[in-house]
Amino acid sequence: MGQRSRTESTRSATMRAPARVVIARVEPEIDGGRHAIKRVEGEVVEVVVQAFSDGHDRLQGVLLHRRSEHDAWQEAWQEEPLEARPNDAWRGRFVVGPPGSEEYAVEIWIDAFGSWRAGLRKKVEAGVDVAADLQEGALLVRQASERAAARGGPDAGWLADATAVLARGGEPDAERLELALGEPLADAMARHPDRRSAARHAPGLFVQVERARARSGAWYEFFPRSCTDDPDRHGTFRDCEGRLRHAARMGFDVVYLPPIHPIGRTGRKGRDNARLAAPGDPGSPWAIGAAEGGHDAVHPALGTLDDFDHFVERARALGLEVALDVAFQCSPDHPWVAERPDWFRRRPDGSIHYAENPPKRYEDIYPLDFECEDWRGLWDALRDVVLFWIDHGVTIFRVDNPHTKPFAFWAWLIADVRRTHPETVWLSEAFTRPPLLQHLAKLGFSQSYTYFTWRNRRRELEDYVRELWSPPVAEYLRPNFFANTPDILHEYLQIGGPAAFVARLVLAATLADSYGIYGPPFELCEGAAVPGSEEYRGSEKYEIRSWDVDRPGGIASIVARMNRIRREQPALRAGQAPLFCEIDNEQLVAYARRPREGRNVVLVVVNLDPHHVQSGWVELPLEPLSLASDASFQVEDLLGGGRYLWTGGRNYVALDPAVAPAHVFLIRHRVRSESDFEYFL
Amino acid sequence: MGQRSRTESTRSATMRAPARVVIARVEPEIDGGRHAIKRVEGEVVEVVVQAFSDGHDRLQGVLLHRRSEHDAWQEAWQEEPLEARPNDAWRGRFVVGPPGSEEYAVEIWIDAFGSWRAGLRKKVEAGVDVAADLQEGALLVRQASERAAARGGPDAGWLADATAVLARGGEPDAERLELALGEPLADAMARHPDRRSAARHAPGLFVQVERARARSGAWYEFFPRSCTDDPDRHGTFRDCEGRLRHAARMGFDVVYLPPIHPIGRTGRKGRDNARLAAPGDPGSPWAIGAAEGGHDAVHPALGTLDDFDHFVERARALGLEVALDVAFQCSPDHPWVAERPDWFRRRPDGSIHYAENPPKRYEDIYPLDFECEDWRGLWDALRDVVLFWIDHGVTIFRVDNPHTKPFAFWAWLIADVRRTHPETVWLSEAFTRPPLLQHLAKLGFSQSYTYFTWRNRRRELEDYVRELWSPPVAEYLRPNFFANTPDILHEYLQIGGPAAFVARLVLAATLADSYGIYGPPFELCEGAAVPGSEEYRGSEKYEIRSWDVDRPGGIASIVARMNRIRREQPALRAGQAPLFCEIDNEQLVAYARRPREGRNVVLVVVNLDPHHVQSGWVELPLEPLSLASDASFQVEDLLGGGRYLWTGGRNYVALDPAVAPAHVFLIRHRVRSESDFEYFL
Repeated sequence: MGQRSRTESTRSATMRAPARVVIARVEPEIDGGRHAIKRVEGEVVEVVVQAFSDGHDRLQGVLLHRRSEHDAWQEAWQEEPLEARPNDAWRGRFVVGPPGSEEYAVEIWIDAFGSWRAGLRKKVEAGVDVAADLQEGALLVRQASERAAARGGPDAGWLADATAVLARGGEPDAERLELALGEPLADAMARHPDRRSAARHAPGLFVQVERARARSGAWYEFFPRSCTDDPDRHGTFRDCEGRLRHAARMGFDVVYLPPIHPIGRTGRKGRDNARLAAPGDPGSPWAIGAAEGGHDAVHPALGTLDDFDHFVERARALGLEVALDVAFQCSPDHPWVAERPDWFRRRPDGSIHYAENPPKRYEDIYPLDFECEDWRGLWDALRDVVLFWIDHGVTIFRVDNPHTKPFAFWAWLIADVRRTHPETVWLSEAFTRPPLLQHLAKLGFSQSYTYFTWRNRRRELEDYVRELWSPPVAEYLRPNFFANTPDILHEYLQIGGPAAFVARLVLAATLADSYGIYGPPFELCEGAAVPGSEEYRGSEKYEIRSWDVDRPGGIASIVARMNRIRREQPALRAGQAPLFCEIDNEQLVAYARRPREGRNVVLVVVNLDPHHVQSGWVELPLEPLSLASDASFQVEDLLGGGRYLWTGGRNYVALDPAVAPAHVFLIRHRVRSESDFEYFL
Repeated sequence: MGQRSRTESTRSATMRAPARVVIARVEPEIDGGRHAIKRVEGEVVEVVVQAFSDGHDRLQGVLLHRRSEHDAWQEAWQEEPLEARPNDAWRGRFVVGPPGSEEYAVEIWIDAFGSWRAGLRKKVEAGVDVAADLQEGALLVRQASERAAARGGPDAGWLADATAVLARGGEPDAERLELALGEPLADAMARHPDRRSAARHAPGLFVQVERARARSGAWYEFFPRSCTDDPDRHGTFRDCEGRLRHAARMGFDVVYLPPIHPIGRTGRKGRDNARLAAPGDPGSPWAIGAAEGGHDAVHPALGTLDDFDHFVERARALGLEVALDVAFQCSPDHPWVAERPDWFRRRPDGSIHYAENPPKRYEDIYPLDFECEDWRGLWDALRDVVLFWIDHGVTIFRVDNPHTKPFAFWAWLIADVRRTHPETVWLSEAFTRPPLLQHLAKLGFSQSYTYFTWRNRRRELEDYVRELWSPPVAEYLRPNFFANTPDILHEYLQIGGPAAFVARLVLAATLADSYGIYGPPFELCEGAAVPGSEEYRGSEKYEIRSWDVDRPGGIASIVARMNRIRREQPALRAGQAPLFCEIDNEQLVAYARRPREGRNVVLVVVNLDPHHVQSGWVELPLEPLSLASDASFQVEDLLGGGRYLWTGGRNYVALDPAVAPAHVFLIRHRVRSESDFEYFL
């Protein structure tokens, strides 16, 4: 051709042709890289890549990662090897550092030397003349020697010598072939690849790294005002110290308090959510703000800010962290209503819109107008509320109804706070449609409340847990399985008695890395509800209650044992997805848990029928658990005590709810030692 | 708060808060919008969106689309309605225009009036006071009236009147409620929405629109040099006119010719791929280039460029399009070897690298060095080859081994040519690993050769066809099912005789919108292969053959009937995915095809065993085919003739390969007319 060129392109002799390597897919990746995956410090990110090039050339590549904070563009990439897998796949892994943001990418190039070496081997085996090939190899080795020299180090001289041998000319002899095909040269060449042909995965992929508590922990929620023996007296932070000891004895990690701020008087709700409060009714803690202050104040009846600080300190001394409720809404008496009237939405008659979900009205609550003209001022003020409590030692926040405030607000707030406080942990309480719940997790919440309370039958439990563990959901959504909340006393608990509470406790504590209960009603097996609803009768949301946590019939000791098992078994702290077992009784659910690393195996069997003995044959998935089909092994019930000798995959279980509705078995592998002496691991 | 603000943010009173609407997913979308979906002109794009907002507000939205060529940013978006579907989904559709590139997006906003109206209705039903609500509504209607006035048109006045009625004050009366809740106001408000809150899906999503032939057509491949009665005489384009008539009689749409250029002499291969040609051997047409010219020249033995032009004209007169082979490689005698030595890769001794796949060598072919220093010059020259043949009336290109040239080259080439020639159709011959085959389709190839030839058993056929039709593959990869090629004579055809050829013909022609055969060997049922291989014995790749297309035992008349059926039945031209039927015999495969619109149903049943009668019970999927379970309907065998009356879903078929190995049934629905007279549709 050449006699004509219809489109004259701009030619630049120095510009290289586009990379021949195609990086078609990098996983994990959420929505094309729009959202970060999540890890806690020290966890591994395993990256799987699909990459290829035209022709027959071999590829080589590295996994890149670095911190991606303010100094993102200064910090150099660290490199990890990428291992070739079948079907044009590559795999690499890196361990994340301290809380913050990390970035990962892959770079893959044509492995000219490896391609040459593979071709040479085939030709030598086929008896084809390779004299010219050795000259080509010499050229590649010489170039590597030059790269090595530029970097310094011992390889340059050795590679130069190898170049001379390969380039010697004449018939290919055994010495030259051995050098060309041998491992020493391949290793040295791999240290000095020609990466000018490298393709890099274009969009930035990010990891949100958090502290370990963001992933796993046992939560205990309680109302601080209900911490006295006398329901007519408003409890104080000082009174709460007994409740802290109770929580610590049960082995919890986090105590979470509903809002602790002054409560409005206008529109105050009465007991059992009566439309009007009677004199003396304390009101709902979520109707935040009064003359005494707003979101940065403490309810005077609970004590002072100093008392709160002391409470946080006491908790810390007991090994407990305090989590606060973030409910960004105001009572009509909140100071902002007078000071910043422009932050609220008004009706044509000038009155402020109270919250409503027609025809229901919440006259004790004014929503904030996140779209008001001074939205930046409002958003900053709300961010400052969070920073205020961080200054008072709180870094775990349970966010009330985030799905009723703009998504963009949460994305901004969490990122902005994390910039200076990467230690903050955020739990989203979005009991709403799945896409919204998931989107909040993608935006940065550390953990999410889930539909767990409403999954009580075997198949729906299995399906739901599988859904939460399936990719990509498990990469960005960490469930926190609350067994009850002040808003949700499921019918199963209302009618099931203590066996139901134990069953739900065991499920929550072994199916999710984070779980929680709202106590003391939970450990006291309180099942009294407003008829036809999931609301507690005499709910603490609207009145002060007093609880005798030592009264007979409670399950505090079982809660304590369950939390101890969680701490002791790596499989339950940060394990792999539950492995559900076949079992020939729909009232029984069984699943095995394994840690990411190591041999620990816990098998949980729960009787979902709180009224009758249920029995069946459990089919253990032997292969994934690395158990031989004819092996005998010991199972020890960590919850109820007792040891059993099982053989093979099929074993019998019977659970009497009157005795114990669940087994939490540790499977003890039988190991044959070198001295032929058998012991259990 | 407000007493401190740790981070002073830049405030701008005029900047609105971020959009509250989240557009979480838009489909179809390939790799996050990196690649275009494909349509042919007049086809529909159905877009499904997942979108939501915080809170209880209702949403409203539109689907946007426009041409996206040079004038992309000038052309205004066209809008189509988005219909709300369950689970936060929205659906809209648009019809694509002429070949070129189109762009689509969605815009969704808070429907303030609709939210208000829904709340008002609930409150009215609950007997709640709505006086203040009517004032709020009046405000919304007044704002819409102002928007309507700004645009002109009749709504402004009417909305202003409605504002006055709603704002009248006093107790809400029947007239005002009827106005507020009625359809006329809702319709007028929907015409003037407040779209300031709109979110728009961020990445551009593109549709590559092509002409209809890019999607469907019947292809006939033949070697022009083999078009004489005398195997010792090289056929000419004039000789080929008989072959064109033959192809036209069989009802094909496209005739595809292997390379028609001068063939190199250096390293020329002999008959049956002998390493050295004997005197008089014509060589492989893929060894392109000789003293007589390169990629823009015609082999002198075929005729002149004028003869080629005449051939293209004759084809067109017979309703056939000519497709050429694009094989970007050179024989050692190609003019470029002397003129542009820098476009080839050299060995250290200065010789040019011939093609090899160690230990195999192709001494008759020099690959081009797509990464040479003057890569832009080379790429332009190759693009000019394509433009040259476009000037000679060819707009369909079958690309030889695209996976051995850089992917970036194809992306550039096809886009660059399409800019001025959107009518070009590109078929990728990438018999390589699935990710590479798929990636070439993503980069812009109109159609792809597939693994169809190697899928001969029922389950593997079903699995493979399902894979090709599954999203997102079906959005970017259009299969062209070749039943044989000069490189692939599958063992099934080698040993199956005419019944095997008919079975594969029917499968290819009814399972993909585009299909092809390499003839005359196919319609003459030539099964003679080089032993232990899929190569034809006496392959036309290396020698001139002559064929008596009218010799007895051929299946040309069946091919003709099959192509006529394809033309007549919309279900087979551009239908929905094949619907495979259960059938109790692994040697039988059965599937129904339906068009995108309309009632046409074709049921294909093929006996995969070319040697024995096979019979079984076909289970028709009645519901997707809109057939009643107790209905009788007529099935007419369009291929073999004969009509049968079937009832319900389960019916018996028996196929004798000696008679006909396949049924292609038209299902005639029985329709009861208004006059109660039954007839078949």
